[in-house]
Amino acid sequence: MPKPKVHIVKIGGGILEDTVRLEALLQDFASLKGLKILVHGGGRDASLLEAQLGIPTTMIDGRRVTSSESLRVVTMMYAGWTNKSIVSLLQSFGVNALGLSGADGNVIAARKRTPSPVDYGYVGDIHQVDASGITGIMEAGFTPVFCAITHDKKGQLLNTNADTIAAAIAAALTEQYDVRLTYCFEKQGVLLDLNDPHSLLTELNRQKFEELVDQGVIHQGMLPKLNNCFTALKLGVGHIEIGSESMLQKPEQPRTTIIH
Amino acid sequence: MPKPKVHIVKIGGGILEDTVRLEALLQDFASLKGLKILVHGGGRDASLLEAQLGIPTTMIDGRRVTSSESLRVVTMMYAGWTNKSIVSLLQSFGVNALGLSGADGNVIAARKRTPSPVDYGYVGDIHQVDASGITGIMEAGFTPVFCAITHDKKGQLLNTNADTIAAAIAAALTEQYDVRLTYCFEKQGVLLDLNDPHSLLTELNRQKFEELVDQGVIHQGMLPKLNNCFTALKLGVGHIEIGSESMLQKPEQPRTTIIH
Repeated sequence: MPKPKVHIVKIGGGILEDTVRLEALLQDFASLKGLKILVHGGGRDASLLEAQLGIPTTMIDGRRVTSSESLRVVTMMYAGWTNKSIVSLLQSFGVNALGLSGADGNVIAARKRTPSPVDYGYVGDIHQVDASGITGIMEAGFTPVFCAITHDKKGQLLNTNADTIAAAIAAALTEQYDVRLTYCFEKQGVLLDLNDPHSLLTELNRQKFEELVDQGVIHQGMLPKLNNCFTALKLGVGHIEIGSESMLQKPEQPRTTIIH
Repeated sequence: MPKPKVHIVKIGGGILEDTVRLEALLQDFASLKGLKILVHGGGRDASLLEAQLGIPTTMIDGRRVTSSESLRVVTMMYAGWTNKSIVSLLQSFGVNALGLSGADGNVIAARKRTPSPVDYGYVGDIHQVDASGITGIMEAGFTPVFCAITHDKKGQLLNTNADTIAAAIAAALTEQYDVRLTYCFEKQGVLLDLNDPHSLLTELNRQKFEELVDQGVIHQGMLPKLNNCFTALKLGVGHIEIGSESMLQKPEQPRTTIIH
């Protein structure tokens, strides 16, 4: 018997900052048939709120250093305002969405990253995704909507990269499901030249990826995203693609498909 | 066959502001046997955050006027920081907690209150609790933790009194469950004289309640809480009590029981 399908869609910060684009994307997500899961990052909103509160925003290699004050801000923004706004919009589009951090239902446990060589503060690296918990939520009739907050099972919330969360959930569900993982972001996919949409790679395998990294063609923001993709591919996720949000409802839309 | 039991515990803002008391209460909650649901209000944290952000806090008759900026703040605080902190702590105490706003799983739908005679802004009055959704979450093995945010099913989040949420959930679950509803707050229960703990009413029925309201003995903060209690009692909630948080694990602890 074939495994049931589940489509995991990760949406990036740029989309969250634009209400019109966000609503259009959520309507496209609502139209997807079958089981589905949404994962959202944060946007600049958390940094803006930090600035308003006089909390310094520190980024190292494109990743936020999360002080205790900063953890409070990202938890408020990602798990509070952003997550509940998305859930409420999805409900209005007929999706029985249910918002989750990794602490809810203990579905994603992480460990605080070791402080050397770089102390990122309250940042968590995922070590366990409870596939049965996520399955239970879906079987109860809900569409999970994940934000980028996890916990360590000892009462500590942790800030965790949303791309990694999407890949980890995808990998954890492969045993029971035929998983499709889609990263929606600002670009058409992986571009050889960021300023030239015609330089899109429609397919990318690990060998080519490593060559491009060596040549310095793959840039900071894309590097962890693609590392997550190849990890998920290795762990059995059947179909992984990266592209702009309009691809959800347009099969003809160009994108980058991750292949072996 | 007797109905299964469920214990709904509402915790007030004063407890949330004190980490030591909150942790002790959550440990007591964790020790409760059987099905249980936690409902939490917000505390002064939302008002403090509003002050930090330069958003005016307006209260009328002890209720917050919720502007769009204020709705963002309360959603961040209640559904984000407070809810996820509680969920994460409960997980560390062995409770498989799952945090919910009314938008999640569409479990609590509300209508924006009409703007006359007083315009409270984005404040919602509950008109529907989906008992089957809450039951589904409990049957999937999770302990629901509700914050004081609902939605209108049309994409609008709404600020909703947590006492009312607890009473509405209790009433909705009575058909299927034997419901016990406990309000934990700063006082020992309903006091005839706020400064005298010996003036505790151990029992209160509607007739006595109405007499006390007419005499001006029941004060602002307590009035809506007791109105919620008597509404829940009328709707079939079997056991309703109000008292300090230590009563959860101390059967001998004095409290006010609401009776017919």
